[in-house]
Amino acid sequence: MSWVTGAEGSPYGVTNLPYGVFRYDGREPRVGVRIADLVLDLAGAEAVGLVLAAGTLGRPTLNDFMALGRPQWTSVRQRIVDLLTDPAHRPAVEPLLVPLDAAELLLPIEVADYVDFYSSEHHASNVGQIFRPGQPALLPNWKHLPIGYHGRAGTVVVSGTPVVRPTGQRATGQGPTVGPSVRLDIEAEVGFVVGVPSVLGRRVAAADFADHVFGVVLVNDWSARDIQAWEYQPLGPFLGKSFATSISAWVTPLDALADAFVPAPDQDPPVQAYLRDTPHLGLDLRLTVEWNGERMTEPPFSTMYWTPAQQLAHLTVNGASLRTGDLYASGTVSGPQRDQVGSFLELTWGGAEPVTVGAGQTRTFLEDGDSVTVRAVAPGPDGTTIALGEVTGRILPAR
Amino acid sequence: MSWVTGAEGSPYGVTNLPYGVFRYDGREPRVGVRIADLVLDLAGAEAVGLVLAAGTLGRPTLNDFMALGRPQWTSVRQRIVDLLTDPAHRPAVEPLLVPLDAAELLLPIEVADYVDFYSSEHHASNVGQIFRPGQPALLPNWKHLPIGYHGRAGTVVVSGTPVVRPTGQRATGQGPTVGPSVRLDIEAEVGFVVGVPSVLGRRVAAADFADHVFGVVLVNDWSARDIQAWEYQPLGPFLGKSFATSISAWVTPLDALADAFVPAPDQDPPVQAYLRDTPHLGLDLRLTVEWNGERMTEPPFSTMYWTPAQQLAHLTVNGASLRTGDLYASGTVSGPQRDQVGSFLELTWGGAEPVTVGAGQTRTFLEDGDSVTVRAVAPGPDGTTIALGEVTGRILPAR
Repeated sequence: MSWVTGAEGSPYGVTNLPYGVFRYDGREPRVGVRIADLVLDLAGAEAVGLVLAAGTLGRPTLNDFMALGRPQWTSVRQRIVDLLTDPAHRPAVEPLLVPLDAAELLLPIEVADYVDFYSSEHHASNVGQIFRPGQPALLPNWKHLPIGYHGRAGTVVVSGTPVVRPTGQRATGQGPTVGPSVRLDIEAEVGFVVGVPSVLGRRVAAADFADHVFGVVLVNDWSARDIQAWEYQPLGPFLGKSFATSISAWVTPLDALADAFVPAPDQDPPVQAYLRDTPHLGLDLRLTVEWNGERMTEPPFSTMYWTPAQQLAHLTVNGASLRTGDLYASGTVSGPQRDQVGSFLELTWGGAEPVTVGAGQTRTFLEDGDSVTVRAVAPGPDGTTIALGEVTGRILPAR
Repeated sequence: MSWVTGAEGSPYGVTNLPYGVFRYDGREPRVGVRIADLVLDLAGAEAVGLVLAAGTLGRPTLNDFMALGRPQWTSVRQRIVDLLTDPAHRPAVEPLLVPLDAAELLLPIEVADYVDFYSSEHHASNVGQIFRPGQPALLPNWKHLPIGYHGRAGTVVVSGTPVVRPTGQRATGQGPTVGPSVRLDIEAEVGFVVGVPSVLGRRVAAADFADHVFGVVLVNDWSARDIQAWEYQPLGPFLGKSFATSISAWVTPLDALADAFVPAPDQDPPVQAYLRDTPHLGLDLRLTVEWNGERMTEPPFSTMYWTPAQQLAHLTVNGASLRTGDLYASGTVSGPQRDQVGSFLELTWGGAEPVTVGAGQTRTFLEDGDSVTVRAVAPGPDGTTIALGEVTGRILPAR
């Protein structure tokens, strides 16, 4: 039980404690942890010896802290819990609590490589049906390996950053034209952040997932469907994605999600040995997608076909090394029902079935001024619920 | 005329002066510039005030120096030329010259994002004919935009780094199997290194190429064709490429290549306005590919359909920003003839036509222990020739 006002019953209570990077009161960017509607200044706490983390908490990203490894992650977290629950610490800790309103939240990690998977069977099937009607919805490789590709790390932005509508080439009946995208979409995803690097040439086993992965962010992989459709053969998505990828300001540590691991869907055909994770666990993260404040869909992350441990094993099976700050995202999270999809491409079935967004507003894809917010909750200990930090963004007109 | 022994007539003479990062004599990594078979310790030179570069020359990568921008790049280069040509500087400078044999060459840049294009018409046509016989060799989008994708920045390694044969899934008649790649290949490419960043949401014009791009490296984009063939639909190459990409230890500044710019091939159909570069210039870089020391092919970079300025304009047309250290490579450089191709896939026509590599050795793809070296020369001033730093690597058995 925390002595912090508002912590009890909050989805950001003492069992959650996501990490972020923030700035307040004219000070340098620093690491903080969220409790209720406050941010504990961990740089300040480390400076006075309340927390020990090798000096990493005064840095402008989480990377140095994440590089310390799981034993340190666990001990720092336990110490923070002590500070926020033992009333004896209150006099020293309370002055380090900053109201969320007074904190400017920054990009929490320096992204090394960004990989995006495509691991929802429902999403891949929907996309297959929309783009290749009459053909098998899934390509032959899909159930044998988690399909993925590299995205642009340098355009990963923190939640709240406005997104300028991208311009690019798209196909028309008379050849390509150039202009602002007219099919601007979202992809609601879950991202995994690597803390501990690996050695070039050596694979990382699925079983070692928790030794390397520090925590989880929510991701909106903004997608210009018209640009993507014209460019993507044969080397995959490029400019249709690279203009912006938003992530939540809060990184939820895996330790906070211990009660959220659930059996993942059975896999048939059986997967190759390097992809076997025992137990085969996904995460019961319940996403919601809001369009201009209206709740549109509720994608269930527990339905993902490939698990984050399998994705990690696949990513490295060829000897590719991990770096601190690597981010790999799940791909669009879509459940079996139309109100569970994680993209507007699916929600409007390729733009053929407009939806209503608020009073009198119909939409197929995003219009200028629209905003999208992805949220998620997960089971916490003892029947409680914890929240992941939301990821939100608003569309600005093309330049 | 340089006072440095061996500089006159060397392809690394005073008109070349590529930059690298090196270590010698137990000292910290630092920036150096190559002259003949020596490396000038620029950190040492800056420390005693012989060169002024805002303290960037003592850093372990070129990034901070590259971020200074073209006026500084030009003034530092001019100063280095003065130091190496004016005999009055010889007493101060000579002690800072390190024999190449005594220098350990390191990865010269911290790679931010790595993009790989596909800009040789001959290569794209060859690949199309090999993989899609009987169909049009080029896909409909190919002549409208420079096709590209993001690769893995964290596995870019410096020339000389051994490459462990990657393991992965490949298709067989009976479904996929897992094992070491049996179709391990190279791609001889030219890479462009970004020094000056750009702002998210704002495109970079082709005309601004020289304001952002610092210089050129040679690239070997090692490729496991069997892994790539099975995984790449629909999101492009992933593990077939991400195990290693080698770059030369030396970054040749654009200033050294002033005499190498030549008209690029005509483009038909005409390109979109944002892709028009006037004048439309490529680079007369003459590559050679050596397999176990035997010269196999001579790819001419001047035949590339898309120019580096067009690639830069395309990369940013959607508002994607550039960071210092971004690397974008040309894609495999292949000329019209079989002895001008930049991949063994093309040289052996998909493995159907083995080649001889040294006495009695036949090959289709790379075997363990094989080494590949890509070199290049370019026209320098007054009929001279300058060399680009080579990129070399040797295959180690799969782990």
